Amino acid sequence: MSERILEAELKRRVAGALTKNGFDERVAATIAGTIVACERDGTPSHGLLRLPGYVEAVRTGWADGRVHPEVVTTGPSMRVVDARNGFTHLALAESREALASMAAATGCAILLIRNAHHFAALWPDIEGLATDGFVAMSCVTSRARVVGWGGGKPVFGTNASAFACPRAKGLPIVWDQAASVMSQGEILRAAREGRPLPEGAGVDAQGRPTTDANAVLDGGAYAAFGGPKGASIAFAVEILAAALSGSPFGFETPAPGTLPSKGGQFVMVIDPRRAAADVAARVEPLVAAIHEAGSEHLPGSRRYARRELALREGIALPPYSVQILECYSR
Amino acid sequence: MSERILEAELKRRVAGALTKNGFDERVAATIAGTIVACERDGTPSHGLLRLPGYVEAVRTGWADGRVHPEVVTTGPSMRVVDARNGFTHLALAESREALASMAAATGCAILLIRNAHHFAALWPDIEGLATDGFVAMSCVTSRARVVGWGGGKPVFGTNASAFACPRAKGLPIVWDQAASVMSQGEILRAAREGRPLPEGAGVDAQGRPTTDANAVLDGGAYAAFGGPKGASIAFAVEILAAALSGSPFGFETPAPGTLPSKGGQFVMVIDPRRAAADVAARVEPLVAAIHEAGSEHLPGSRRYARRELALREGIALPPYSVQILECYSR
Repeated sequence: MSERILEAELKRRVAGALTKNGFDERVAATIAGTIVACERDGTPSHGLLRLPGYVEAVRTGWADGRVHPEVVTTGPSMRVVDARNGFTHLALAESREALASMAAATGCAILLIRNAHHFAALWPDIEGLATDGFVAMSCVTSRARVVGWGGGKPVFGTNASAFACPRAKGLPIVWDQAASVMSQGEILRAAREGRPLPEGAGVDAQGRPTTDANAVLDGGAYAAFGGPKGASIAFAVEILAAALSGSPFGFETPAPGTLPSKGGQFVMVIDPRRAAADVAARVEPLVAAIHEAGSEHLPGSRRYARRELALREGIALPPYSVQILECYSR
Repeated sequence: MSERILEAELKRRVAGALTKNGFDERVAATIAGTIVACERDGTPSHGLLRLPGYVEAVRTGWADGRVHPEVVTTGPSMRVVDARNGFTHLALAESREALASMAAATGCAILLIRNAHHFAALWPDIEGLATDGFVAMSCVTSRARVVGWGGGKPVFGTNASAFACPRAKGLPIVWDQAASVMSQGEILRAAREGRPLPEGAGVDAQGRPTTDANAVLDGGAYAAFGGPKGASIAFAVEILAAALSGSPFGFETPAPGTLPSKGGQFVMVIDPRRAAADVAARVEPLVAAIHEAGSEHLPGSRRYARRELALREGIALPPYSVQILECYSR
């Protein structure tokens, strides 16, 4: 494999690796899209590094790599989809046009996905909607690891949420963040590398603050960002992505690889044109003010800088990504 | 005045004080509802203490106490209302039934209010929607006081947001929080009382962390809760409540009493029945898990405890509330 690879070629190869390992072609194409987007944008932690997890989930029968989602119910501004123990990617891809049409016709639209697996970054799910002029939000539940409004035991998931808005003079502004101070991936990495966590990121099994990543992982809990206010965000995600979609709450979600996780996802799309608001143009003076106030970067702007390079010169895969792709392509 | 006063009687008296001071009867009734709700629920900081501000705003011509809101545009799931330099309360009250009907018919509905003043707590705006079985969210912009994703200068408003969901076995769970570590009211109070702020709540005019409330107020800035993640929340509020509604961003909002603030508000209503989800019943095991994990209180539960007492025995007004009411009733 050459040092740099074109996006379309990498998509083809990742999709091929998935179909070789028990995935349906359409399912594989949508998952490959997200994996490649993360490699392209320089976040390999959510790229090919996730491939073995997808394959293992399907191989053990925990997730279904061949199933197609089913629309459960649909209304003028709301659609509920059962992913049937598959991955959210195809469910989202198949509902994308309907969502955009509903929002254009009524002002807003909500997609609720149940019975799904979501191993991926959340920003790829909504960036395209903002590229098309919509304001979009999404959130997903996950297994309980985060403390509530008090106490030291986990009750909420890390419950990622993401928000995207269009820009007239650039790619959309998209943020994607966990409800915890640190994401699960960041805490796992700190544990692996023996690095201490920052103060306030977690508690041990006795509910005492600790900077020891292993103590947090070993029966402890993650802190919500900003304390009780972050817990409020995590709670809202439980309601939107779990209760509304008909999915288990974080505290009801089994450990990976055991029972089906039956995960939920919430996606909301708002059409500013229905409000006669040119959000994409309006956001430009806000961007200027944000920079003037001292923020060098916008959420996503580092991803876009790396993307630009990758689209020009090809995607530079780190060695472990190359190895995973070769191993799973055999 | 007796030591305790009935809710209906207090509403009548507060509305009377407002109409005596230049407010239209319907405008006065809706503002009185919010003021009395805060006195009843034991949060007098948002109760009669706000009355002089309302009256002063109208007396100086900064806000209009007589104007009625106007529907600008409406679609199946979206409604835009111009408050015409009045207060949001009547705009919300007049759109409430339409919002509920739209959400029931389509799944979700968004209300965007522009050209409005919002001096009040946000939870009274959405609690009733959750009582009726809806999931509801709201947020409002305010003048720039909060830092962005970096730097030490204010760019976002304190941008309160609120979230409400119904419960089968109790009153709705409603949270209402600023995007900053501390709300403007809390920082003003600390300055007045000469108390230091907690670490990490603000920076001085040079962008250096400080615990001196006066240094924060004197050209400094408030920190977002949880740092960059809270800034992301504040940014989303700028887009939802300002850009979408056609209102100024926090950094464009003039100081109170000067030019009209033209404030924006975003309200979203979701009907779980359209998703065939019984959110009110589903939330009960989550509530049990939250308590088991060590959270003694839910957001709003202390308000409800004080409300129960007030509804049984009458509302106990603090002396300054009594004094304000008497002064403005003459």
